[in-house]
Amino acid sequence: MSEIAKKAGIAKGGMYYYFRTKEEVLDALVERQYGGIIASCGALMAGSHGDAISKLALLLRSYRTAQVDATLDVSLHMPQNAAIHQKSLGRILVALSPILAEVLAQGAAEGTFECAYPQEYAEILLSAFTFLLDPGIFSWTREQQGLKLRALADLLEAGLRAKPGSFAFLYAQ
Amino acid sequence: MSEIAKKAGIAKGGMYYYFRTKEEVLDALVERQYGGIIASCGALMAGSHGDAISKLALLLRSYRTAQVDATLDVSLHMPQNAAIHQKSLGRILVALSPILAEVLAQGAAEGTFECAYPQEYAEILLSAFTFLLDPGIFSWTREQQGLKLRALADLLEAGLRAKPGSFAFLYAQ
Repeated sequence: MSEIAKKAGIAKGGMYYYFRTKEEVLDALVERQYGGIIASCGALMAGSHGDAISKLALLLRSYRTAQVDATLDVSLHMPQNAAIHQKSLGRILVALSPILAEVLAQGAAEGTFECAYPQEYAEILLSAFTFLLDPGIFSWTREQQGLKLRALADLLEAGLRAKPGSFAFLYAQ
Repeated sequence: MSEIAKKAGIAKGGMYYYFRTKEEVLDALVERQYGGIIASCGALMAGSHGDAISKLALLLRSYRTAQVDATLDVSLHMPQNAAIHQKSLGRILVALSPILAEVLAQGAAEGTFECAYPQEYAEILLSAFTFLLDPGIFSWTREQQGLKLRALADLLEAGLRAKPGSFAFLYAQ
């Protein structure tokens, strides 16, 4: 709180004029950080003219490698901030799933995929991404994580009736 | 704390001999409750001699309708208990996935399924069940929830190369 107040050039007590608690500050930081990541994922898709597979690869890679501020990430994984962490995972899923669903629908229009449930498939995929692969909830080894990504690729290729190997971007380095 | 101490026939202060904080009490209650649910899911599978599909239906229905004590459930969904809630979702996934994976492997042995990643498929399925369908994290309508279950059935049938409709038990009433 002191550091933020100093940077903003106000007294520490003045912070409480804007935020009632420390949690509200963290919540606002998380909102801004993830809001930015989601906005840039949306812009990336709007600006890309590739086919559905290349757009999916772009979107998921961009999401997974998004730089979340390291200090913020450590704070989010502290037990006392679990409520904010959980809320943020939920928000990411809700905000990112329509963007992902649109790419799945594009693939269906192109004939690369068959998908009767683009929105729900997007949500199931993002559940694995945001929950199962969250290093703050589980501590998988690199090998276990690799297997989960291979299984996810296998499941999606089958579910979307896509060419085998088209989701290899999920696990290939 | 007072009520528990009264029931146990000890002074409220005596509680702190066993538990350092209120959170530790809640954690122990959650552990016992979910430990019980997982043990009964395991016993149900060990005692069932059906085929893989009927065992899956039994397992998932038994998990979804397991009576979690209502007061405990309300407590778990309070923001201050989010850390315990999150830990419990993670624990359920870790404990239930090998039981589910064994049923998937049975289906592969019977020729009902093809599955190269039973453990990982089980984890992805449980991510949707424990995270995406958690009413404390998301507030889906009954209709939205139904669509998610239909999509999950569609995805699993394709991924496991199972007969269309074999996962209808997920959404049929």
